[in-house]
Amino acid sequence: MRVIVLGSGAGGGFPQWNCLCPNCQMAWKGDARFKHRTQSSLAISSDGNRWLLLNASPDLRQQIIATPALHPKGAARHSPIAGVFVTNGDVDHLTGLLTLREQQPFTIYGSRATLAQTQGGVFGVLNPDLVKRTPVALGETVDPGLGFSITAFAVPGKTPLYMEDANLVIGEETETTIALDITSNGKRVVYAPGVAKITDALVARVDGADALFFDGTTYTDDEMVKMGLSSKTAWRMGHVPMSGASGSVEGFKNARVGAKIFIHINNSNPVLCEDAPERGELAQAGWRVGYDGMEIVL
Amino acid sequence: MRVIVLGSGAGGGFPQWNCLCPNCQMAWKGDARFKHRTQSSLAISSDGNRWLLLNASPDLRQQIIATPALHPKGAARHSPIAGVFVTNGDVDHLTGLLTLREQQPFTIYGSRATLAQTQGGVFGVLNPDLVKRTPVALGETVDPGLGFSITAFAVPGKTPLYMEDANLVIGEETETTIALDITSNGKRVVYAPGVAKITDALVARVDGADALFFDGTTYTDDEMVKMGLSSKTAWRMGHVPMSGASGSVEGFKNARVGAKIFIHINNSNPVLCEDAPERGELAQAGWRVGYDGMEIVL
Repeated sequence: MRVIVLGSGAGGGFPQWNCLCPNCQMAWKGDARFKHRTQSSLAISSDGNRWLLLNASPDLRQQIIATPALHPKGAARHSPIAGVFVTNGDVDHLTGLLTLREQQPFTIYGSRATLAQTQGGVFGVLNPDLVKRTPVALGETVDPGLGFSITAFAVPGKTPLYMEDANLVIGEETETTIALDITSNGKRVVYAPGVAKITDALVARVDGADALFFDGTTYTDDEMVKMGLSSKTAWRMGHVPMSGASGSVEGFKNARVGAKIFIHINNSNPVLCEDAPERGELAQAGWRVGYDGMEIVL
Repeated sequence: MRVIVLGSGAGGGFPQWNCLCPNCQMAWKGDARFKHRTQSSLAISSDGNRWLLLNASPDLRQQIIATPALHPKGAARHSPIAGVFVTNGDVDHLTGLLTLREQQPFTIYGSRATLAQTQGGVFGVLNPDLVKRTPVALGETVDPGLGFSITAFAVPGKTPLYMEDANLVIGEETETTIALDITSNGKRVVYAPGVAKITDALVARVDGADALFFDGTTYTDDEMVKMGLSSKTAWRMGHVPMSGASGSVEGFKNARVGAKIFIHINNSNPVLCEDAPERGELAQAGWRVGYDGMEIVL
């Protein structure tokens, strides 16, 4: 199985269009220690010929151009992209579906709640005669016919920002926010780009995976508040920080996992600087920081 | 007035994600004669500090990064982008609005018909407390407070693809497809990225402009059909070809216009090759072929 990180950034990417936080300042200046990052998406394949995207970011056109494995081959109109599995309804995970127009057949997988957000309005460009939508229930295992199977499971999450209302509950485990457990030839990859907190059940669910691609939005819960960028903590945005007693590094420290890789990294996160001391902390705990174009072969 | 071509391609850009037409093959190979093109958008400014986008393409994040004038300046969260004027509801003109999230105030201008397509669903990320929608009627002149005024006028067009139904009419002049006439300090720019046919009224409307940025989707009406890429002619897609008796080169040959520049160029158009003979025809007729990053100062 090959896994390519198409986009390692969180919503907005890095640098973010309207941001001059200390990290973004360095990225706008072109400092090589601050790699640019497009928005959150992976591509997986068992044969290198047909690929499934895990989420479709607004940067998808740029990501396809940067990734030779995803270029069209053979026919006048063709794509190695056989489908997209969406894990929640965030704009950074759905918008790329609008790039996949132009009369090309593929399948969208996701929970019923998330697929509902890909209907109507501009999403009408995805001609239902060509683009199939396959709802996946919690706990259900699907076989996209690509040499791997995928099981969807709920993680503590949050409704998408554009659907928040006065009844917002954070940390519920519903089909609104799912993670994916992917198996191919006895190898297992778990993909969880949005997780509001680490639970014992989640750690047990991940145990034994050969690779974990995990929510690396923030380093500390309150970093955006402290930087004056937002009034929202990571928790309020539906994300668990990397550090601290309830963070992901601590939470997974005893989990038996092959490669532990952070993705969905927000522009505020200090680990975006390649020589930041926080990088050392992560490395010591066995974590790697994902980057655009990173590839893992299992 | 400064005008920057952020994206000179039509919907799908160049190369297009799923296309191996002769032009796209050369672009995927990296042949320098076939410049990559992002999707259709201009940026205009009278002072170089505050900018209005004319349409917001799916590639907007990439376009902002490539355009120093649009980088944030000063505050922790800031953007020189004061607003977006949308000319129709096509996915290649609306999707970039989803990039402009992240709690930034700006104004969206457009006809009522087009603004209606920017409501609901994922567009809910554009917080109405910060993002103002200003409907503009046909013939109305608006002053965005940026040192220029803009008049919207209808051109022969077509409803967006995702709204087509059995009653589709092509070539009607309604608020579904508009062009913009922009005036600043006595200079005039006309922007018309989608026009189904050249009428005497349109030629008269454009007369006297210092610059015209015009629909350059195809060179011939049936090129996509002949290449086996689509069953649709340019007319069926709501676009007039460059060449031929009813094409735009012939149509504007007697119009008094300063700079005539083609934008919204489809991947099938032979003029995408910088040494194509068709380029000579255009040059002889006084037309230039727009490219990403092209800037005109008036």
